[in-house]
Amino acid sequence: MVRYIIHEEKGPFKIPASDEPTFICMCGLSENKPYCDDSHMKTLDEEGEITYIYEGNTRYDVDDGDI
Amino acid sequence: MVRYIIHEEKGPFKIPASDEPTFICMCGLSENKPYCDDSHMKTLDEEGEITYIYEGNTRYDVDDGDI
Repeated sequence: MVRYIIHEEKGPFKIPASDEPTFICMCGLSENKPYCDDSHMKTLDEEGEITYIYEGNTRYDVDDGDI
Repeated sequence: MVRYIIHEEKGPFKIPASDEPTFICMCGLSENKPYCDDSHMKTLDEEGEITYIYEGNTRYDVDDGDI
């Protein structure tokens, strides 16, 4: 599975010192980046050999001819 | 400018509590995600209306017919 996600930032995000752990988005889908907002739940049904492109709330399956 | 980045993770990364600020990759190009490794320097010459796809160290300019 390959998932293409749009990025537009050109620099890092500074997370302040914290007494608690911080959960960072790795799936690329969070609407509150860089923080996790559980959007990775949308990825759980992604399948092995498929290439996906996410744009907003829409997921395109490239290999299925969506694009 | 739109930059497509490959993501393969299906869950967040837990950053431990820290006495220091942490710099998180937002450009999508760090090889040490979620931490910034200054790879965003590669984005500084990206131009306004162009769609880019990065795969490893290669940058494709979609609108230029690279893909």
